[in-house]
Amino acid sequence: MQEPIRNSEYKYRVEVCFVPGQYPLYAQDMGIVVVIDVLRATSAMVAAFEHGVERIIPVGTIEEARQYIGRPGYIAAAERNGEVVEGFSYGNSPLAYVGKDLRGQTIVMTTTNGTKAINLAKNANKLVIGSFLNLSALSEWLVKQNENVLLLCSGWKDKFNLEDSVYAGAVMERLLASGKFGVEEDSSIAAKYMYMAARDNFLSILKAAPRRRRIEQLHLLPDAKYCLTPDQSRVIPILREGELVRMESVTA
Amino acid sequence: MQEPIRNSEYKYRVEVCFVPGQYPLYAQDMGIVVVIDVLRATSAMVAAFEHGVERIIPVGTIEEARQYIGRPGYIAAAERNGEVVEGFSYGNSPLAYVGKDLRGQTIVMTTTNGTKAINLAKNANKLVIGSFLNLSALSEWLVKQNENVLLLCSGWKDKFNLEDSVYAGAVMERLLASGKFGVEEDSSIAAKYMYMAARDNFLSILKAAPRRRRIEQLHLLPDAKYCLTPDQSRVIPILREGELVRMESVTA
Repeated sequence: MQEPIRNSEYKYRVEVCFVPGQYPLYAQDMGIVVVIDVLRATSAMVAAFEHGVERIIPVGTIEEARQYIGRPGYIAAAERNGEVVEGFSYGNSPLAYVGKDLRGQTIVMTTTNGTKAINLAKNANKLVIGSFLNLSALSEWLVKQNENVLLLCSGWKDKFNLEDSVYAGAVMERLLASGKFGVEEDSSIAAKYMYMAARDNFLSILKAAPRRRRIEQLHLLPDAKYCLTPDQSRVIPILREGELVRMESVTA
Repeated sequence: MQEPIRNSEYKYRVEVCFVPGQYPLYAQDMGIVVVIDVLRATSAMVAAFEHGVERIIPVGTIEEARQYIGRPGYIAAAERNGEVVEGFSYGNSPLAYVGKDLRGQTIVMTTTNGTKAINLAKNANKLVIGSFLNLSALSEWLVKQNENVLLLCSGWKDKFNLEDSVYAGAVMERLLASGKFGVEEDSSIAAKYMYMAARDNFLSILKAAPRRRRIEQLHLLPDAKYCLTPDQSRVIPILREGELVRMESVTA
């Protein structure tokens, strides 16, 4: 077993919480929470901003999202169990936004896991959105901050999920490499091991048989490939008064 | 990333639950639950049976255990936060039982994590105790059963814990090798990766810096080495009417 982490001296902590239900156990002293739902909500959010969307309002229920169907300037998106909810044109597929000009639009989105995790952590000092699409941009920004960072995996229906954990390990590796961050939690060490096993080929995550079967059943392979391709965007979505916006629009 | 699991055809499932709090999400259809608390409760239990103890009564509170202090034929054991509770001679150290003749004794034990997990899963069809000490004996027995198996990690104060997860991966590898078992959960795939990283040297688990620090602070290194040494016992403790006994005493 390689020793994943050598950090006796550090200023800030970066830790991983594997499932939303454990968030209260890990949230203490965490200035920044990164919400992660690689397949597919947080990937879709970054893709939407990359294609011009102005803000994304995460909501808890399908009913809240439904009120925005057909309203000018709004895109209503709802996903449950991996499928677009009946009556909606958008679910959580990032490819639905690719190639479109969505400047000025507002998305109202509810998903099985991702928007739930956002809602759970909405009182964090800073809540930002992570995905492979913005891996480098997000990691570079995190390294510049002077705060503890919690990487919050959305999981799958409150259960542990492999791709979110691998992504958390990828962000962690970059933060540890800065020399400014260290870890204390076993979950963080485990995420690092996950990432070390997957780093040469993120798509290999899909090779694990049961998961591949589920993805094939849902016809998600093009989506999954897109969601696992790093560094397609420099956008970092950040939560401001219940709405996700581009960070540059806040700091500018 | 190696593909850890190839199992399109199987009769029974073996899955991993990382923390007691997630047990209800994983318990469905699981005929056998293996409770795991490598450092140190379930290792101590196997060691105690190996040295002659007749039964172990897991209790939830220090007060319940305290009633047995000084009572003939009973050993009262209580651990909280890694330390023996004041007033008790035994905590959760397996080395406390090594080299002693404890034939006929009953242990009443309460610990931070392990006895909590046992209590949580006490209504399982069969609840057995797993540790590196009885890794082969337990795995061989599990392979012979015709039931789904849930490997329930006790964790550390409801959080994910590395050594329990690595051990779960070790049991899983043996069950998968039989061809009779398959997995569906991402947590199970992750445990297998953990084990693949650690398999050449279980003690290397301790090298992860924060954990080593904690273990050194608690002066646990001899205990930890003992707990991570596989196959020191053929005993499989099983829960019967709220008490742990040797399996052979049930099946004989």
